[in-house]
Amino acid sequence: MVLSNYLKEDKVLVAVDCIIFGFYQEELKILLAKRDFEPEKDKWSLIGGFLKKKEDLDMAATRVLNHLTGLNNIYMEQVSTFSKVDRDPTERTISVAYFALIDIAHHCKDLLKQNPIKWFDLKDAPQLIFDHNAMVEKALLILRRRAMTKPIGFELLPDKFTMRQLQKLHEAILDTKLDKRNFINKFNSQDILKRLDEKDMSCSKKGAYLFQFDQEKYHKKLEEGFSFKI
Amino acid sequence: MVLSNYLKEDKVLVAVDCIIFGFYQEELKILLAKRDFEPEKDKWSLIGGFLKKKEDLDMAATRVLNHLTGLNNIYMEQVSTFSKVDRDPTERTISVAYFALIDIAHHCKDLLKQNPIKWFDLKDAPQLIFDHNAMVEKALLILRRRAMTKPIGFELLPDKFTMRQLQKLHEAILDTKLDKRNFINKFNSQDILKRLDEKDMSCSKKGAYLFQFDQEKYHKKLEEGFSFKI
Repeated sequence: MVLSNYLKEDKVLVAVDCIIFGFYQEELKILLAKRDFEPEKDKWSLIGGFLKKKEDLDMAATRVLNHLTGLNNIYMEQVSTFSKVDRDPTERTISVAYFALIDIAHHCKDLLKQNPIKWFDLKDAPQLIFDHNAMVEKALLILRRRAMTKPIGFELLPDKFTMRQLQKLHEAILDTKLDKRNFINKFNSQDILKRLDEKDMSCSKKGAYLFQFDQEKYHKKLEEGFSFKI
Repeated sequence: MVLSNYLKEDKVLVAVDCIIFGFYQEELKILLAKRDFEPEKDKWSLIGGFLKKKEDLDMAATRVLNHLTGLNNIYMEQVSTFSKVDRDPTERTISVAYFALIDIAHHCKDLLKQNPIKWFDLKDAPQLIFDHNAMVEKALLILRRRAMTKPIGFELLPDKFTMRQLQKLHEAILDTKLDKRNFINKFNSQDILKRLDEKDMSCSKKGAYLFQFDQEKYHKKLEEGFSFKI
């Protein structure tokens, strides 16, 4: 009796797909995997897998990412659940998209071990299987909205960075050119940067000052947002 | 061969649960249903049901809401997918939470027909089944964040409203008292309100001017947000 309402319902497969963004050499990048099973074998896809009986979605996303890339301790958050009836031609499967931002330089050596996994410049990324392009678009929207309302960069930039790198990151995310002076003023008014007594000498003779995020102020701003306050 | 990777995977039940917020007589309200099957029969729950084979999640949420409340044409958006292994003791079920804002006065008569459905003041709402309280909390976070970064009220307030109603709505969502003069200034600076030549005379002898949202400016602000712009 208790089960009667449940027994007649349809069960479906549940997948997780991970959108992993990185930033390296002034380009926003995405980590993709060559799919090694049918359908769509050998096409590029997000890093994904199926939810198992004994794990929740966060655990599944973490396991799948770790299994395919070796990446560990990556904080991921849900984007949305995709559920078009025919999104996977083999079998009804809904998929929960997750996204994460990672510092490529820091994780580079883990990933080099892996074979069918590759970083692409987002703007040159290949067509993906199923609805994975739509998942990337949705994650990008979240990333863009975040860049407009909260500090961003902590996960994507190296520990010390130049103002130019910070601007290039924002330009890559927002997909637009920004005015340098305006950018610096807006960012300085947020008061989350510490200028170091150290310069990056690789780009010019004069060098460019290196900055770090002030962790405490950065996290306070993360909570507050940059946004309109009533 | 093609199916082999899919066949060994675990299928689960997928539910949708709808968090429906309304605003009436200066209170933020939530629409709840008395559950009419086991487990947790006769306890209060969100308005929910199971995903069927031939529908996507948006369709399921719309169908479930319409079936239980008679409500039609309500725009709902995904909050998050909840997936703790033991969240439903009967059977592994993941649930996709949706939320919507509705103008109670406008939909009141549809709902009065229904029996086991009831509006509660959010602050006096009963304990809900399973993880439904966590779903409400998450939807509230989204609603609060939205009230800080975008205009809100179009879906929740009647067509014409007083400044007091608008303030009370924001106080209810943000769960805090706001300074009247400060609120009026901040809101006026957004330039999305039209003051009408009409007064609500029900509250005082002098009456209170009625306002409407300027639809065009409201929707422009919705896209732009009130937020920090680089």
